[in-house]
Amino acid sequence: MKKIRILKPVLVSNQQRARENRGVFDRMNSLVINIIASPGAGKTSFIKYLVNVMKKTCKILVVEGDIKGQIDSKSISRLGVDVIQINTATECHLDAFMTAQVLPKIKKNYDLILVENIGNLVCPAEFEIGEDFKLAILSTPEGDDKPLKYPLLFHLAKVIVINKRDLLPYVDFRPDEAIKNIQKENPKAVIFEVSAKTGEGFEEVFRYIHKELNARKKKSKR
Amino acid sequence: MKKIRILKPVLVSNQQRARENRGVFDRMNSLVINIIASPGAGKTSFIKYLVNVMKKTCKILVVEGDIKGQIDSKSISRLGVDVIQINTATECHLDAFMTAQVLPKIKKNYDLILVENIGNLVCPAEFEIGEDFKLAILSTPEGDDKPLKYPLLFHLAKVIVINKRDLLPYVDFRPDEAIKNIQKENPKAVIFEVSAKTGEGFEEVFRYIHKELNARKKKSKR
Repeated sequence: MKKIRILKPVLVSNQQRARENRGVFDRMNSLVINIIASPGAGKTSFIKYLVNVMKKTCKILVVEGDIKGQIDSKSISRLGVDVIQINTATECHLDAFMTAQVLPKIKKNYDLILVENIGNLVCPAEFEIGEDFKLAILSTPEGDDKPLKYPLLFHLAKVIVINKRDLLPYVDFRPDEAIKNIQKENPKAVIFEVSAKTGEGFEEVFRYIHKELNARKKKSKR
Repeated sequence: MKKIRILKPVLVSNQQRARENRGVFDRMNSLVINIIASPGAGKTSFIKYLVNVMKKTCKILVVEGDIKGQIDSKSISRLGVDVIQINTATECHLDAFMTAQVLPKIKKNYDLILVENIGNLVCPAEFEIGEDFKLAILSTPEGDDKPLKYPLLFHLAKVIVINKRDLLPYVDFRPDEAIKNIQKENPKAVIFEVSAKTGEGFEEVFRYIHKELNARKKKSKR
């Protein structure tokens, strides 16, 4: 028996469920960001840096996707924001159905919902969850060629964050080359260069997310 | 329509095909290592360091798995060893059927076949390809908690290489903690600590692979 190819019908039904999730998020008036990166690229550190500053001005929920365990959920909870854990057991990505299971647990309206997907550059890109946009993180130790090797994610992500700028002196990563490679796949990508360790570059990220939050508020008033 | 779960039957048929591949590799008397890691953990650098030294004493083939492109194949070819490229297009892992498609292209007997899987800690662990063993690479910038978050790979890999030791002074990675976490999932794991940049720690890796090559030769003489 050969491997059965059912990718397309699965994605179609996932898209339907993602639209339904989107309807729920719209009624809550929440900006939902689907955060995707390799294992250890700094998804959790990025979220923690964002949460720590932005929790003063907006209501944040973090949805934490992991194969197993609650290591990151616990560390984010300590910042005083609400966290919901999804454990996928064997699945290498979040999908719209898993996200739908979270919806009944959301008991109030959040301005910003940050979803940390499973550490993987491939499948998470294929499954919409009802997000406003995907935010991809590429860390400098991974190399500047990754946008060419994992093109779908870098093609679909509206925002791409180059993280771990603090390691630039010690790794073979050319920021200009990385940006060129990103733009080959996605000429309109919004690109930020940061270090979630030192905080470098985060001012522009905050400004961007505030702008997106305001755009969403205006949309809901119409 | 809900997502269809067909994981189990797929794995069973994959295992059958993997056994058939294994039969072919046995007849060639090749040691086959399935190398699995995150994007950018240093799979290609590890392979290049190994090849550069070991090509003097044994015949090596590299099978290079990528979603798209031939960046790594080209750079490995320049070392003067044979390379076969597999492009998976959308698949996030190699499986036994993809590997079977490579077999007719293998025109001579190699002592050592190094298979570089897709950069992903999840699905590549689930699909046997007919390998002698899996070798997982964990790089220091990824963090010492990864064995707990992606347990299946670290459970199944006979050999686990901690790479990028040269970055230890600059990242939050505790080698003892990483080893403890690996051993929680896999008490018998053979663990090496290396830097594919400086060559640190490779002597022990060479010794180990030579031992495995000799064991395979003895087995075939019986």
